[in-house]
Parts: sequence; C-alpha cells; structure tokens
Amino acid sequence: MAGQVRNKQVMLKDFVVSGYPLESDFVLHTDTLSLKLSEGSYNAILVRNLYLSCDPLMRLLMVGATVDSDPGFPLYKLHSPLNGFGVSEVVDSTHPSYKIGDLVWGLTGWEEYTLLQDPQALFKIDHTDVPLSYYTGILGMPGMTAYVGFFEKCMPKKGEYVYISSAAGAVGQLVGQFAKLSGCYVVGSAGSKEKVDLLRNKLGFDEAFNYKEEPDLGAALKRYFPEGIDIYFENVGGKMLDAVLQNMRVHGRIAACGMTSQYNVSQPDGVHGMVAVIFKRIRIEGFAAFDHISGYDKFLEFILPHIREGKMIYVEDIATGLENGPAALVGLFSGRNVGKQVVVVSPE
Amino acid sequence: MAGQVRNKQVMLKDFVVSGYPLESDFVLHTDTLSLKLSEGSYNAILVRNLYLSCDPLMRLLMVGATVDSDPGFPLYKLHSPLNGFGVSEVVDSTHPSYKIGDLVWGLTGWEEYTLLQDPQALFKIDHTDVPLSYYTGILGMPGMTAYVGFFEKCMPKKGEYVYISSAAGAVGQLVGQFAKLSGCYVVGSAGSKEKVDLLRNKLGFDEAFNYKEEPDLGAALKRYFPEGIDIYFENVGGKMLDAVLQNMRVHGRIAACGMTSQYNVSQPDGVHGMVAVIFKRIRIEGFAAFDHISGYDKFLEFILPHIREGKMIYVEDIATGLENGPAALVGLFSGRNVGKQVVVVSPE
Repeated sequence: MAGQVRNKQVMLKDFVVSGYPLESDFVLHTDTLSLKLSEGSYNAILVRNLYLSCDPLMRLLMVGATVDSDPGFPLYKLHSPLNGFGVSEVVDSTHPSYKIGDLVWGLTGWEEYTLLQDPQALFKIDHTDVPLSYYTGILGMPGMTAYVGFFEKCMPKKGEYVYISSAAGAVGQLVGQFAKLSGCYVVGSAGSKEKVDLLRNKLGFDEAFNYKEEPDLGAALKRYFPEGIDIYFENVGGKMLDAVLQNMRVHGRIAACGMTSQYNVSQPDGVHGMVAVIFKRIRIEGFAAFDHISGYDKFLEFILPHIREGKMIYVEDIATGLENGPAALVGLFSGRNVGKQVVVVSPE
Repeated sequence: MAGQVRNKQVMLKDFVVSGYPLESDFVLHTDTLSLKLSEGSYNAILVRNLYLSCDPLMRLLMVGATVDSDPGFPLYKLHSPLNGFGVSEVVDSTHPSYKIGDLVWGLTGWEEYTLLQDPQALFKIDHTDVPLSYYTGILGMPGMTAYVGFFEKCMPKKGEYVYISSAAGAVGQLVGQFAKLSGCYVVGSAGSKEKVDLLRNKLGFDEAFNYKEEPDLGAALKRYFPEGIDIYFENVGGKMLDAVLQNMRVHGRIAACGMTSQYNVSQPDGVHGMVAVIFKRIRIEGFAAFDHISGYDKFLEFILPHIREGKMIYVEDIATGLENGPAALVGLFSGRNVGKQVVVVSPE
C-alpha cells in the first residue's frame, strides 16, 4: 500500500510475575503502518516517537492480569507494544488540538510510530530552547513528581534535614536540588561510587553514601543524621523504610513516590518500625504526579527559569535506538543507569 | 504536723519492658502531705484528684529508661506516683491563674492529692453542666484526638467508607459518631460481643464485628467494605494495619493515634503491604492531640452543644477508688473495659 512504513515495536514476550525482568522477556517486532490517518478517523493523532522514558512504574505493568496489583495504569499485554511516557512529533492529526509538526509529551507506545486515539494524557511542548528529552524527565512526570512530592507533600522549612534514596535517579536528583534551593541539609544514597560522586560533586548534595556498602542502614542514617531526619523522599521501601523510621524526627514527613525494592520480590519485606509513626507523629504520604497534573503549567513556570539560568541541572543516561530499549529498561531495576534513563527512538 | 493528710498513691513496682502489665507491677503507697502550700512557694497549685484517666499511652511510659522509646512524655520512675490525665479541684494555690475551688483537667498524679509546680498542661473547667469525668474523655484528650484525627487528618466527605478499630474505646466511639454526623458509612471492630452490640445498637455504627472471631482480618474487611475503605482510624497497628492496607481505596487516609497491638510485644509485627501506599496514594498520619491543644476552645464550642442536645453520647467504664486503679489500667490492655476507662479517686 502506498505510504506504508515499517514500525519497529518493543513487546513483552512473557509476563514477569516476580524477580527482575530480563532482556529476554522482551521481543522486537516489526509491523507496518500508513503515515496518513484513515478517512473518517477523528480525534486521533499519529506520532513519530523521539524519546521514550524508562520508569520504575513500568515494572508493575509487566506482571500479567493474574496478580492483584493496581498501579493506576493498564497492565501490559503480550504481543502488543509496551507503553510509557515519551516525547513525540505529530505526523498526522484529525484532532482539533493538534496539527502536523506539533511536539508533544505524554503516554505513547514503545515503537517508532504510535496512533493515539482521543489522547488524554498528552501535553503540547511550547518551549524548545531546552533539550526535548527533558520532557521525559525534569520537565515531565519525574519533574512533577519531585516538585509535588517535595514542596506540597513535604512542606520543607529552611534548615531541615532531608534524606533521599535512589538519589541519583530521575526524581531523586531533582529533589536534592530543590532541597538545597530551600536551604535544607541533604543526604542522598545510591548504589555505586559513580552515583555517589555525582551526588556530592555535581548535584550539590551535602553528603552521599553507597547503600550497598552499609551492612546496617539504620546505623548509616544515624551517622549521616545525628539529629534525625525531618523529610524522607521515599523511592525504595522495605528495609530502607524501616531504617528511616528509626531515624525520623518528631513531625517528620515521608513523601512516597515509589518502593522499587518491593517491585521485584514475591514476598514483600515487613516494615517493623511503624509504631514510630505514632511516637513521632510522622506523616507518610503516597502520591502520584498524574493526580496533580492540573498544576503542570505552574510547575513549568517555576522550573524553566531555573534550567535556563543554570540553577538546576539534569543528568540523563541516554540509550540510542529502540532496539536498545529493553536493555535500558531492564537496567533500571539493577541500577545500571546513572541519572534519568532515556531511549532515543528517532532523531529530532 | 498540723494540717497533714494521708495521700494514697499508685506507683510502679517494676518496669514492664515487654508483655502485658499486671496488677502486681503496681503498688499502693501512703504518704502524707500538707494541704497548705509552703510559704515562699509560687506558681504552684495543690489539687485534690477527682477522676483519673486510663490511657493506652501509659503503657509506653512503664518500660524504664533502658528501652529506646520516645512516647512524648517522661517515662515512669519506680517509687514515684504514676501520672496521667485527670480532673482535679484546686485546694491551695500560689499561681495567679488558679484559685482555691477551681476545677481543672490535665496532667496530674495517680494519688489523692498532687502538688503541681508551674503547671503547663492544665485547663480550667468552665462548663460543669456535663459530667466532670467527661474531661478525661469526650471533653479531654480522647475527644480532641477523635476530633483532630477525624476532621483535620482524615478530611471526611459525605458518603465515604470509614473503618475504626478499637471502636468501643475512649476515642473510637467518638470517631464513629463524628463519621455518622458527617454522612459517612461506618464500621467498627472491637473484641467482645458486648462491645459490638454497643457499637451497633447504641453508638449508631452501620456495622460492627468482633475481630477476635475473624481468622482472616483482610477477608473480614473485604466483606464489610466491598468497595474498599476511604478512611481508617488506626488504634491497633500490626496485622490490623496490614489487613486495612489491602482494603484501602485510592486516596485513602489513615489517621494513626495509637498502635496498641504493638505496645506489649517484644518483636513488633512486620507490615508487609506498605507498597499499597504507593499504588493507592494513601496517606498515613501519626498525630497527637496535645500538638493541637491550641484548638481546644474551638473544639469545646463544637462538642458541648452536641452533648447537651443528645447528639453525641459517651460511654464510660468507671472504677471506683484509687486502690482499684491498677486493675482498671491493666484491664485496658486486655480490652476488659467497655468505653472510656475512668478511675474515681474522690467524690466531687
């Protein structure tokens, strides 16, 4: 058929019920599609995907329908492209809000081209003087997550003690910088020397440590926070949460946007120190940036000048080519990436 | 010496490091004191104690100084009277804010007479058309706890599903009535048929169940809340918290004022379902009424008319005589009391 193009796609080959996902759980598939929307279609757009985001949440979508899980997004099906957040260019549109050439970010497919019928979770990109890939990170969901979680959920005060786990990741690196902008004392943990150095030397954390080298996480936190922790930005869960609870101060706040240590296990860790929530009047709040997406424009107004003036930086780990997407995604769960993991699908 | 009176006191005989406290952990002691404050004393009051409050928090003060615990109040010492909340009458005063005959409620000693030097946590009782013992309960800390926890921490909306553990206790019975006043659907759990009947037949709960008869708490909650739980008022902790987390709805709120199941154990239960906090964006907030005590007058303005008009009731379990105080206090932890446990020390 005229105008047909090849469309490379990443699909899930097997559900990943427990344990770490492997590259071999995914398969590349090549389909074909027309770059013109069919006549009679409406409220549809066809996009060419430029950047795809690797997010920890995607692990929860791989489990298959048999598992009791409610991650807030539809679970992945076998033999159908994954989806996730990405940056894309509109190549055809029958939607009144989008025209050919528009740049957008939001939910799209893990493929070269995606047909989006009546897209809801999509934002037009108006500011292109910053790297477009940033819309998968500092200017996308991770940015909103850090912003909402830190400012709205943790309500930081100058001089408070802030601890961030997965601190070199897509969200953690931003929370650390927000905390320094707020006059807080900030310690981050990560899983390699390279990441710890990044936190200390580039991202402005006051201290950082490699949690893999700490046999006793509670003791490590006691060392870094002799006065205790006011704010914990929770990305990990399990034993780390327990160690933090031991070290929280009265009226401490825990913003919980992820518990990645619990996503690959069949038996979740027990958290034994919950009674600290009573003694220390601690607030633990789970949240998701997409619940706060109506505040996105306000967030952009805040963050864009900080980027342009060099007051916020963002570290990305770029994998090139959709065929390298599965390795990049899987690497997220072993902590291979340094900074926000992005997959480049097509040149801008 | 002239004007000396006998002063019966309840003291802790042995620290209760773990396990349930026993009556034999306490001892009655008789001291003497003068009913006149010594010359040169200032900012002091001498009170005759009328009612003493048995509070779960007191368990945490019995552990001795060797245990890592921070309940927010000074730990009990051996050979010194316990303290806790009570209702008292001023019998002498060198404090400008109190005069002989004033009725007060607040922190006092487990004894017939208490000398309070520079009292901070004390409120003058202006309204005496309601039972004075209510100032240990519905008009005291339990009342404030229910009010702050339910209205400020849980922010109920009409039609929401509310679950309350220890629902027939000092706080739970009030939360249930607040929830009904707010147009919520309310289920409570308690540990005996008598309490369950009280919840259903007298306190206006929609449903109630005996948690001791439920081999699977998660399944029980699923039965009572097929749509899930929006608000949980947490008094218990441990396995109950885990069962609740399984059954919470998205954006659920847990106000945690106690975790009594964890106060008598040496190894705390692990809570295995914390990842629900992420998936369902749940907020868990520990709080203590004394952090909100500046709002006490506003609370009184709200609650007094409800009591006078019969729109709120309060069930008390009254033990008479200080010598019966230890049994009443100990009974709290086995759930012997039905309603707020009060000890009458002296006739009004």
